[in-house]
Amino acid sequence: MYKGVCIEKIEARWLNTGLISVGLDPVLSKIPTSLKHEYTSVEDVFFAFNRAIVDVTADLVCAYKPNSAFFEAEGEEGMRALKATIRYINKAYPDIPVILDAKRGDIGSTSEAYARAVFDDLGADAVTIQPYLGQDAIQPFLDRKDKGIFVLARTSNVGSGEFQELVLKESGEALYKHIAQTVAEKWNANGNCGLVIGATYPEELKVVRSLVGEMPILIPGVGAQGGDASRAVSAGCYTEGKGVIVNTSRAVLYASSETDFAEKARATLKELRDSISVGDLNR
Amino acid sequence: MYKGVCIEKIEARWLNTGLISVGLDPVLSKIPTSLKHEYTSVEDVFFAFNRAIVDVTADLVCAYKPNSAFFEAEGEEGMRALKATIRYINKAYPDIPVILDAKRGDIGSTSEAYARAVFDDLGADAVTIQPYLGQDAIQPFLDRKDKGIFVLARTSNVGSGEFQELVLKESGEALYKHIAQTVAEKWNANGNCGLVIGATYPEELKVVRSLVGEMPILIPGVGAQGGDASRAVSAGCYTEGKGVIVNTSRAVLYASSETDFAEKARATLKELRDSISVGDLNR
Repeated sequence: MYKGVCIEKIEARWLNTGLISVGLDPVLSKIPTSLKHEYTSVEDVFFAFNRAIVDVTADLVCAYKPNSAFFEAEGEEGMRALKATIRYINKAYPDIPVILDAKRGDIGSTSEAYARAVFDDLGADAVTIQPYLGQDAIQPFLDRKDKGIFVLARTSNVGSGEFQELVLKESGEALYKHIAQTVAEKWNANGNCGLVIGATYPEELKVVRSLVGEMPILIPGVGAQGGDASRAVSAGCYTEGKGVIVNTSRAVLYASSETDFAEKARATLKELRDSISVGDLNR
Repeated sequence: MYKGVCIEKIEARWLNTGLISVGLDPVLSKIPTSLKHEYTSVEDVFFAFNRAIVDVTADLVCAYKPNSAFFEAEGEEGMRALKATIRYINKAYPDIPVILDAKRGDIGSTSEAYARAVFDDLGADAVTIQPYLGQDAIQPFLDRKDKGIFVLARTSNVGSGEFQELVLKESGEALYKHIAQTVAEKWNANGNCGLVIGATYPEELKVVRSLVGEMPILIPGVGAQGGDASRAVSAGCYTEGKGVIVNTSRAVLYASSETDFAEKARATLKELRDSISVGDLNR
């Protein structure tokens, strides 16, 4: 089956560097004070922090996942920092895909505008998408053959079952499974789709993997949210070392609040990475 | 039942000016060339266009509904125009609520950041929300007692039934009805929730109204998308002149591409407004 450029980029990183991505979720109160003394604007602080994290982790990650909300919360300056961060990764590390976690989704003409914002203005390689509106609404994203479209199936939050676990009358299956299968069978004509399933639901992840073939699955929720990286890898890979993007954010970003934050971020990431041995696949 | 400040603001506008809102969806190629000659930056063109539309329609609308995507698509300049537009409405027309159509929704800590972006940075009175992640994820929005939280139930697009019409095993009801009821019965403890139902589904709107009491329902999809305003009013109001925000965007915004665009926008809006007579309620 044809695979889009972004999916191929992710697969190459799996092969060369592993399965972990780092989430870039800057929060002013958590960023080391040393950086806040060195730079005065939020824009400069966010960008300097992200660049430092990226520079010490680039040889260890398969992707970066900036979360749009944390930049939007700081308004114009935050958005400038987001764009600068993505553009920096694009330029300095062109092999590393940037998945913008924005959870967008609207009717067609509006999705078209969001796709322009995310891919053309900001420069992301992939985006996370809400499934609720249905395929015709999401089509402007799906039409971007060389981008990655990660559709929410089972989210990492404690209450994600409220609607996602509702059992459907016709199939007797839970909604999130139906959505995962629909994306795999109908939405993925351009080979550019992936799914999002929280590390907090390893059993559900395993079931979904058995249903959807080789689509990449983005797995947030490791660490602060309680998900286990090794279990996610063993439940989610479709073959040794392929199939999942296991994301870690807070544990790495805020490993230290001192001047050694970058060094500690790398050490924490390396430890997490080493904890996922190939043997995990068949546990 | 307690009602939040934003919902009270909407109800006051229903009483004083009617049921129609205007969507602010600026698209550079559709904006009159006269404005593009007068102003050079996208930011200034968007703001001047929005201000002109707002100034000629403020006595006729119950709310404004800027759509975040159309601003995001123009990057930093677009976002500055969005903030300037909302702040202008807040200041010049403080009685008119601004519903930011952004369709946000993420896990709790991220929703907290989005709530700050939408309400604190941009200054919106209300926002549209994706239901898929469940209540615990959306709680940071729901906690904003004085804001309005409009949750997607049945969207206006042709393919919205793909998931929204799936019948649930336990209740035998469609997913969108279950979500509407859940919002009404569980999520609305602060009296600040509303729903979104497309004008293109008047029968579904009628059913939902019968299930959810007096919650306001935001109704996009009139005009360009094929929805009928009078049918939406008769299906969606819970009593004469109360219950719905019927949104019109393109038909009003782009009523003329000449220098008379504002005048024509007002005339088109007035015509639509007059076409919804009180008699429509019991048709």
